[in-house]
Amino acid sequence: MASSPADYKLSFGLWTVGWTARDQFGQASRPAFEPWDYLPKLKEAGASGVTFHDDDVAPFGTDEAEREKYFTKFKEVAEQVGLKIEMVTTNTFDHPVFKDGGLTSNDRSVRRFGLRKLLRNVDRAAEFGAETFVMWGGREGSEYDNAKDLNAAHDRYAEGIDTIAAYIKEKGYDLRIALEPKPNEPRGDIFLPTIGHALGLIAKLDNGDIVGLNPETGHEQMAGLNFTHGIAQALWAGKLFHIDLNGQRSIKYDQDLVFGHGDLISAFFTIDLLVNGFPNGGPKYDGWLHFDYKPSRTDYVEGIWDSAAANAEMVTLLADKARTYRADPEVQEAFKSSGIFELAQPTLAEGESVADLLADRSAYEDFDVDAAAERNYGFVKLNQLALKHLVG
Amino acid sequence: MASSPADYKLSFGLWTVGWTARDQFGQASRPAFEPWDYLPKLKEAGASGVTFHDDDVAPFGTDEAEREKYFTKFKEVAEQVGLKIEMVTTNTFDHPVFKDGGLTSNDRSVRRFGLRKLLRNVDRAAEFGAETFVMWGGREGSEYDNAKDLNAAHDRYAEGIDTIAAYIKEKGYDLRIALEPKPNEPRGDIFLPTIGHALGLIAKLDNGDIVGLNPETGHEQMAGLNFTHGIAQALWAGKLFHIDLNGQRSIKYDQDLVFGHGDLISAFFTIDLLVNGFPNGGPKYDGWLHFDYKPSRTDYVEGIWDSAAANAEMVTLLADKARTYRADPEVQEAFKSSGIFELAQPTLAEGESVADLLADRSAYEDFDVDAAAERNYGFVKLNQLALKHLVG
Amino acid sequence: MASSPADYKLSFGLWTVGWTARDQFGQASRPAFEPWDYLPKLKEAGASGVTFHDDDVAPFGTDEAEREKYFTKFKEVAEQVGLKIEMVTTNTFDHPVFKDGGLTSNDRSVRRFGLRKLLRNVDRAAEFGAETFVMWGGREGSEYDNAKDLNAAHDRYAEGIDTIAAYIKEKGYDLRIALEPKPNEPRGDIFLPTIGHALGLIAKLDNGDIVGLNPETGHEQMAGLNFTHGIAQALWAGKLFHIDLNGQRSIKYDQDLVFGHGDLISAFFTIDLLVNGFPNGGPKYDGWLHFDYKPSRTDYVEGIWDSAAANAEMVTLLADKARTYRADPEVQEAFKSSGIFELAQPTLAEGESVADLLADRSAYEDFDVDAAAERNYGFVKLNQLALKHLVG
Amino acid sequence: MASSPADYKLSFGLWTVGWTARDQFGQASRPAFEPWDYLPKLKEAGASGVTFHDDDVAPFGTDEAEREKYFTKFKEVAEQVGLKIEMVTTNTFDHPVFKDGGLTSNDRSVRRFGLRKLLRNVDRAAEFGAETFVMWGGREGSEYDNAKDLNAAHDRYAEGIDTIAAYIKEKGYDLRIALEPKPNEPRGDIFLPTIGHALGLIAKLDNGDIVGLNPETGHEQMAGLNFTHGIAQALWAGKLFHIDLNGQRSIKYDQDLVFGHGDLISAFFTIDLLVNGFPNGGPKYDGWLHFDYKPSRTDYVEGIWDSAAANAEMVTLLADKARTYRADPEVQEAFKSSGIFELAQPTLAEGESVADLLADRSAYEDFDVDAAAERNYGFVKLNQLALKHLVG
Repeated sequence: MASSPADYKLSFGLWTVGWTARDQFGQASRPAFEPWDYLPKLKEAGASGVTFHDDDVAPFGTDEAEREKYFTKFKEVAEQVGLKIEMVTTNTFDHPVFKDGGLTSNDRSVRRFGLRKLLRNVDRAAEFGAETFVMWGGREGSEYDNAKDLNAAHDRYAEGIDTIAAYIKEKGYDLRIALEPKPNEPRGDIFLPTIGHALGLIAKLDNGDIVGLNPETGHEQMAGLNFTHGIAQALWAGKLFHIDLNGQRSIKYDQDLVFGHGDLISAFFTIDLLVNGFPNGGPKYDGWLHFDYKPSRTDYVEGIWDSAAANAEMVTLLADKARTYRADPEVQEAFKSSGIFELAQPTLAEGESVADLLADRSAYEDFDVDAAAERNYGFVKLNQLALKHLVG
Repeated sequence: MASSPADYKLSFGLWTVGWTARDQFGQASRPAFEPWDYLPKLKEAGASGVTFHDDDVAPFGTDEAEREKYFTKFKEVAEQVGLKIEMVTTNTFDHPVFKDGGLTSNDRSVRRFGLRKLLRNVDRAAEFGAETFVMWGGREGSEYDNAKDLNAAHDRYAEGIDTIAAYIKEKGYDLRIALEPKPNEPRGDIFLPTIGHALGLIAKLDNGDIVGLNPETGHEQMAGLNFTHGIAQALWAGKLFHIDLNGQRSIKYDQDLVFGHGDLISAFFTIDLLVNGFPNGGPKYDGWLHFDYKPSRTDYVEGIWDSAAANAEMVTLLADKARTYRADPEVQEAFKSSGIFELAQPTLAEGESVADLLADRSAYEDFDVDAAAERNYGFVKLNQLALKHLVG
Repeated sequence: MASSPADYKLSFGLWTVGWTARDQFGQASRPAFEPWDYLPKLKEAGASGVTFHDDDVAPFGTDEAEREKYFTKFKEVAEQVGLKIEMVTTNTFDHPVFKDGGLTSNDRSVRRFGLRKLLRNVDRAAEFGAETFVMWGGREGSEYDNAKDLNAAHDRYAEGIDTIAAYIKEKGYDLRIALEPKPNEPRGDIFLPTIGHALGLIAKLDNGDIVGLNPETGHEQMAGLNFTHGIAQALWAGKLFHIDLNGQRSIKYDQDLVFGHGDLISAFFTIDLLVNGFPNGGPKYDGWLHFDYKPSRTDYVEGIWDSAAANAEMVTLLADKARTYRADPEVQEAFKSSGIFELAQPTLAEGESVADLLADRSAYEDFDVDAAAERNYGFVKLNQLALKHLVG
Repeated sequence: MASSPADYKLSFGLWTVGWTARDQFGQASRPAFEPWDYLPKLKEAGASGVTFHDDDVAPFGTDEAEREKYFTKFKEVAEQVGLKIEMVTTNTFDHPVFKDGGLTSNDRSVRRFGLRKLLRNVDRAAEFGAETFVMWGGREGSEYDNAKDLNAAHDRYAEGIDTIAAYIKEKGYDLRIALEPKPNEPRGDIFLPTIGHALGLIAKLDNGDIVGLNPETGHEQMAGLNFTHGIAQALWAGKLFHIDLNGQRSIKYDQDLVFGHGDLISAFFTIDLLVNGFPNGGPKYDGWLHFDYKPSRTDYVEGIWDSAAANAEMVTLLADKARTYRADPEVQEAFKSSGIFELAQPTLAEGESVADLLADRSAYEDFDVDAAAERNYGFVKLNQLALKHLVG
């Protein structure tokens, strides 16, 4: 039976449907509406959650009184509509003060300002009941390798994140930080370019326990990396705190297409992992499926809602396919034949020491490598089975 | 004054000059010589170290007695010639038994065989006085997202590395493991595709203290990533144990060109970092500059030695340029003006708490963002200064 | 009703199923069989045609008498089995004599040898009744920009192709040449890197009328280009003479996956174009659907035939979906709304001169740009309709 | 002796120095000045020419009277300052009316408007004495393969260009059209993505004789293609009408860095070709060296002029190096040894027929392929010689 968007925890960034389609080479092609005006239609499109950057709700520089009005109104409408504010994030990239970064700007006064803006938004996130505080450091980076002391830059990045994490703990907020990697654009090279680099940094933090990842489909694919592999490593490391789904076609500028409208096979396996978990069990994601995409600039207002609904529909379509795929006995048989279950067995037997292994002649001296080399793993057949489920 | 290769710790993989130029689409274009025959000419080309895969010296499957003869002879000649065996690595990719990986093959018997082959080579590395044991898992990965239980794969990869590291410690060997990331080729997606992903895995190991990185210029660039940024993060994390220098031109198959024959500006800044360190001090690399390149298939035997010498010459040329670049007062002035030194200052003052920062109105409420936004960081000018040193 | 492989003109390169899986980093993982041994199973897998390089049937250097036996036997078995030899191509890349190219080698004696090898194979192609003579110049190119006089290289390439084309005409063979572009691998940069560059060269040939294209899915995608756009331009130019279908995942080494196992959406639209033609009519491809792929190295002999069948199955699956997609009235309505049919109308009305256009105030002076800018092209909705057909 | 910018025909787009650094993710970081205010400083930076889009001088929608004032003033100041208006181009991408293209929009009324805007600008180009009319169709393309009838799109593109070319001829203007290819951004896939595709289209035009190319360094590199190879093919085809120099680092968003700040080796060989021509003579470019770059967003007004001067300086530095490189007898010797001059010899001797070639046993039957395969082309050595000139 077909599932419906309501069966999933789907959420959208306010800036996605709110994008007026101004791009690097052209003016806006759509009007802007009030922040709360998007909420009822998001709900209709299948969302049960919504997220925002601070400046999406109250523009940068809005005076305090006005600002509170914006946020109050937004929260009220979200509640009325029935959308949970599940994540909040901070804009440290739009205003030119951040042109060299928020936490790693060479200008210390900018770093202090950036940190304050982030801390203020932590309070907002906590107040609004968000579970996740996403940090995308889109301006942290450089175009020229000598524009940064790269050791100091990582020190400052770690200092900033650690300070925020410490503040969250100090305040007792029920909030976790999720870093969002991206390889480039708008900077020539962005710090923490991939899931891996973020995991590497988190491992060095004092408060890394509440810091994880918010990987985005297209961002990893902009580096030619396999998104499902990436989120799997994050899950394995206990760090998949949030996820940004969208579409990207090959290595180029950040496209932010509808989820599934980029690399469809990859999208299928991403949903398979998120919905069904690993074949042998293990850590499983139970967070929000968050869309961070852009309605195409060629579409007008109507297209905003066509595209929002398309995201939700792609998840339901792919999830339904992924369930029948996994439930298919032929697939399970192919899993077995391909050694999928065998990989869950430790290489050393329970209690086996290295000395035991070294003494096991069957493992090496008497091992028939040529016979083993002839194993037909059957990966193409297995993949074709998946494709028949997906397309068939 | 111009430096010479002898001023650096330069080493070459035996498989580099020994590559007979058989590629994906063609037969070998050069003859193979005995392993030790390459050593005198490597020395001449500027090397003071040499490295090898086990199978480079004694072919896979060589019987034990013969095998020892090969290794003994190789070591003797290396000593005569004056080449230190600074690193040893293991071939777990050539024989088809490894077609699905050595440590993460879906076939447990293959994993056991692979682990044994690696452990045996650890003994060899220790015996030969190598400092570093490089592990490139070129066959660990997949072409299809369902070909692996990705959680189990990371479990097995970690198990394998941890077992080897534990063995090194148990034996009391003075040897460190260096993982070599690569995004793809020969597998569609390789596990630990970048420096970051390897750092992320190392952080989860039981014996991660003796496990670090052996990043390769071209491998990071195959993902469009900035190599100098990558090794800087590895240095920052205390994990730059070894380095593979070569050349790559954009995102494509693994080219393994001569170092500096790919992205020259990047090569300059890599050498600048390795030779001069970070502008504000901090961790500094003092290991070997190891070349992992391929003499072009269009060149015959003569070209092997032209290309080996070219690698060494590129290091000396770039290092000399990098030193005068850093010593140039105009560059230092530009560093200052661009905020390079300012980035070394913590964002929070010494002893400053978050509460203090929140109370500092100059940091936020009274901060003139528009004035700060007008700062001319001067990065283009600084880069042009570097280029004038490089090209001028 | 589901279509079957027999409904299409499917053919395979002998070198595809015959690939023993020796790659850049590893030895063969599968045995080689006699050339004719592959033919019955190819037929079973859904093929009605087969193609080969000269050296696939009789190894390079085979003496003349032996060589004729090989070819005779191959032809006999192909006829028995019922496989048409629809295309023949020439190996000018495997032997190291071609390491700098066949038609553009800097060595004139090699160019003469290459040209002779090609001409000889033209005779064979004609004798065997092939319709198409594919030329993939995989070794024509360079790693270094100074390794070639690039003007002379294009002169020589054109000379070589023109000579072959003239020979075909002179002999009265019913054969057309199809150039196969590829951006790189095995050379750093290959001449005629894309469909476009080949079209550009063909336009300068004396005998360009019988020279067209054999574009390969993965080759265009290795440059990040849209394959369907590419073959559409070739069709528009009257130059789509043959086609190589396979799969590629993003910009990396040449993967040669099963067709549809790479970018699935792109594969769908490729088949949609090949099967259904352009929405407004125009040139339509009626040639062979030729697979140029590699069975994965992790699979053994069984996997050869699984993968061959998967290629054929993907075409039938996608073609069936493409037909119902085009026949769907909702899709046709969306085509209309998106302006798909409107694009077929010339911009100038029939008989309208530039002067007329300049005098038409409604086209410019009185044109309401803001109203026109608000048109909702509905491209996301249209794409989602396609995806629902593909996945639904 | 060092050359100076005045020794070259250097020109800048007004939109380059005039870019206020608004990007996809952020607001402008620099103020806008009046169009003519940039001219004296451009002259100072080394320019002798300037170029513009219609809307750079008089904003889109400016009324006719005002518009003429803008253009008149601009022309006056350019003349006073001594900058030739060598090229004019048309903005058919900024206003949302062009969101689906100017000449290939699915909306015919938009195509008519776009064509009128282009024709009007042809008059301006002619009036201002420009030699070249560049057409960059940045919005001609799609994100989804079904968003266009791709045959009709090429028909319309050809119709538009042919109409403009016919108009130029009819008016007797001394003006040539130069198409500027780009693979993607702002569209997912842009029509005429590379130099090759544009050459292919031009070959089908009625008025293709006055239509050529304006290739841009970074645009070709965004597809991983070799820029110098590309312009060489354009030169070979007699179609290199204009050139856009800038810098790009690998395959990613369009960076528009200073020329030489991207792939430096490629920049060297580009300048080598432009300044020195092909080693064996042949077509040579004598047009403008036009910079189409963006001053980094991190720089303020001062940085505009630092970066403009850096472009000019990179040309002089590289050109000086290229001249001494070519004049070096060791390089000429290496050229000879590598077969650079040999490639200029036709493969068939003068007057040699195919029959003659087929009868020449030395070319095939008696040709010693193994000996020929052992030729050491020496390409690495030759490249290292170039690098020593570049860096040494």
